[in-house]
Amino acid sequence: MSPNPRPVYRRADLRRLLEPRSIALVGASPSSGSLGRRTLANLHAFQGEIFVVNARHASIDGRKCYAGIADLPEVPDCVVIAVGRDALEPVLAECVAAGVGAAVLYASGYAETGRAEDAAAQARISALAHASGLRIVGPNCVGVARRANALHAAFAEFSPAPTTPGVRIGLVSQSGALGLSLSQAGEHGASIGHVLSCGNACDVDVADFVAYLAEDPDCDVIALTFEGLAAPERLAEAASLAARAGKRVIACPLGVSEAGSEARRFHSGTTSGDPVALGALCAASGIVTIERIESLIETAAFFAKAGPPGRASAAILTGSGGTGVLAADAAARHGVATPQPSATTVARLRAAIPVFGAARNPCDATAQVVRNPESLLECATAMLADPAFGALVIPWGRSQPTSLVAGLRSRAQAAGKPICLVWMSQRLEGPNAEAIEVDPRIALFRSLDACFAALARWGRS
Amino acid sequence: MSPNPRPVYRRADLRRLLEPRSIALVGASPSSGSLGRRTLANLHAFQGEIFVVNARHASIDGRKCYAGIADLPEVPDCVVIAVGRDALEPVLAECVAAGVGAAVLYASGYAETGRAEDAAAQARISALAHASGLRIVGPNCVGVARRANALHAAFAEFSPAPTTPGVRIGLVSQSGALGLSLSQAGEHGASIGHVLSCGNACDVDVADFVAYLAEDPDCDVIALTFEGLAAPERLAEAASLAARAGKRVIACPLGVSEAGSEARRFHSGTTSGDPVALGALCAASGIVTIERIESLIETAAFFAKAGPPGRASAAILTGSGGTGVLAADAAARHGVATPQPSATTVARLRAAIPVFGAARNPCDATAQVVRNPESLLECATAMLADPAFGALVIPWGRSQPTSLVAGLRSRAQAAGKPICLVWMSQRLEGPNAEAIEVDPRIALFRSLDACFAALARWGRS
Repeated sequence: MSPNPRPVYRRADLRRLLEPRSIALVGASPSSGSLGRRTLANLHAFQGEIFVVNARHASIDGRKCYAGIADLPEVPDCVVIAVGRDALEPVLAECVAAGVGAAVLYASGYAETGRAEDAAAQARISALAHASGLRIVGPNCVGVARRANALHAAFAEFSPAPTTPGVRIGLVSQSGALGLSLSQAGEHGASIGHVLSCGNACDVDVADFVAYLAEDPDCDVIALTFEGLAAPERLAEAASLAARAGKRVIACPLGVSEAGSEARRFHSGTTSGDPVALGALCAASGIVTIERIESLIETAAFFAKAGPPGRASAAILTGSGGTGVLAADAAARHGVATPQPSATTVARLRAAIPVFGAARNPCDATAQVVRNPESLLECATAMLADPAFGALVIPWGRSQPTSLVAGLRSRAQAAGKPICLVWMSQRLEGPNAEAIEVDPRIALFRSLDACFAALARWGRS
Repeated sequence: MSPNPRPVYRRADLRRLLEPRSIALVGASPSSGSLGRRTLANLHAFQGEIFVVNARHASIDGRKCYAGIADLPEVPDCVVIAVGRDALEPVLAECVAAGVGAAVLYASGYAETGRAEDAAAQARISALAHASGLRIVGPNCVGVARRANALHAAFAEFSPAPTTPGVRIGLVSQSGALGLSLSQAGEHGASIGHVLSCGNACDVDVADFVAYLAEDPDCDVIALTFEGLAAPERLAEAASLAARAGKRVIACPLGVSEAGSEARRFHSGTTSGDPVALGALCAASGIVTIERIESLIETAAFFAKAGPPGRASAAILTGSGGTGVLAADAAARHGVATPQPSATTVARLRAAIPVFGAARNPCDATAQVVRNPESLLECATAMLADPAFGALVIPWGRSQPTSLVAGLRSRAQAAGKPICLVWMSQRLEGPNAEAIEVDPRIALFRSLDACFAALARWGRS
């Protein structure tokens, strides 16, 4: 792809795509398991009109079929096109002729094959988008979802939203499969408000989605994965919109190694995105980059909960001395300082814990916290009050009462410092994990390393 | 602690502790939540005699109470002592006098406080053990568990064993809290056969437990965490017993950083274990060390499933091009080669996947594998047959039919190469995760990095 100097699309440019009043589905088929029928099922709760276009059937799933876009009772804002690549371009022409606002293209067989004729077909679609003003997502994409309006214009079954909302994460993933895997964090309480996948990105790309989320009031923080960028400067532009809106962008770029970059060329056909240049661009734009995709959602939630950067030093508080040792090791690996508390703090800790505990950093309040959770709150209060620390990390070896989480939340709020609970139990979705996840202030990590990697990026040095 | 030149305890030395015919519980109390009562509840399925010692009660939980060890109808093999430190030494003297085989001491307030008088009390207990032959676990420990005989001589509630057994992991954790957290992997299908915690290790230490597991036929692989070692050469001795038995030892040492080492001194009172010397000892002894404790159990299971080392190069097979790019990046981070397949393999891959896939390494078999799982098996067969690869890695973005896991298992077996499934879904305990976990040949990881870190340590360079 060649650099594309157009400015980033804004929310106003993408509202007919992501906040449509009406959606038409072209290529809906009665055959079970078909992409069209799966999309129709996913749209069941959509808050708007749905039209089905199919010239060979009178109705599908109880919905009347229309012969073409021109036959619909109104011009739909968005058209999801579930037909294969050979039938695609005529449908797009119909969309343009009718004045449709946006189209989502599932069909594969374009730039990703590496064949010149397929790249040429994609270039034709791209040119159509730019000439007409029709905003196009895809081709080779799984669709898009936005929870606030129950838009699920996708054949992929993104996970259901949790009933208790926490900080709302807007997820942008070039790869639909990764978007699907990541969105399943909703199953353990993460509040994924959007899943936006752009596949080959012949028109709308990840930068446009980031810009949309920057301006969407139903999003608190942006989580991003991408392989290549047609125009890296657009990502910088989108990041500056996000910064203006007070939203952090957390990115896990793909294809940063030689082997990965080579694989990327065969997947999305993108070759841009030299890792060094990309890293510099992200740093300059305030984008937080991470290496390990399994930490993307929890890192994004942390940044939304943590608020403005504080001191890059952590107090560690545990009910298990061994876990404190582990946590100190992990902090050191990520360059997060773990200084000793002041004499005043030590005295407060000493008063709260048994003599066989450790009134220092890391603080070992010992297993007696199981019987006496108040002592853990006292230690937390003392450590949060100490100016030596920018944040408090509590490795959580077993389930604790939710009242304790509420107690910690009020102390984090009062101190204006983040508290990170690190879920050490291998009972990964065990009792109370979700209660912590949905908490508006307490961040949950499932790895000490993920926690300290995030704190290292959050803190001021 | 000073170096202790005694040889490592073997299975024969620890059978009265871990395979006792009878157990006595001293300090059992009727008060709910007490350590004694929790221990009694945990022992409900124990396959042997249980005696309760308490001079102030006639019975507890329907069990007759005896006034002292000397009053029991037989000499118990093992005595669990749930009394506090002030009452402890007289009970130990009773045990020695009666000829008890082993004692488990819960009481805290010994070397871990850092006070000279507490260290002296621990030294007295240690001397008693060495003089008498009574094997002592603790003090300051949560107890021990061994599934094969339903021994759960601990107040900590280690997770129940899964009903479907996989490779049997013997877990040794100096810290009881970490042992508890790690053992909860049983909740998602990991087969934890032992949880052995030694606390302050005044007599039996982690090296002795490793030696025991090396000789216990109910253990396939050993997972280990520890803070300090009184005599590092004993760990080398235990590791050589494990190697002789064909069992790998996977260790996550604690306190390897300066801050962690300092914290360790305040926790377990151990100061030995210079990280560089320790790393050299582990490398020389064939112990696999890892940094991230959350990968300990899955890494141990991998080594038990993978068999003898093969080529340190991986074939990557996905149904998602983006995931393939990510996997190639992770392999590069850990120095695992991802060479290209032979022309023959490429031809076989090309025949199995669509034109918009990628017949190379990483192989993108595309999302059509959802409808056509056979094509994934064909690609797996082709890549496993290629001598360029020592192992096959399949990132698993969503739940797949269990029949596919069985198909992969037979191919791994036929090729004599390990297959690693990497669970990319954030639905951490989602459908089929457990079916993979308990598979005797297919290893499951919840992180690409954990997978490639393990392969890097497994493969021959």
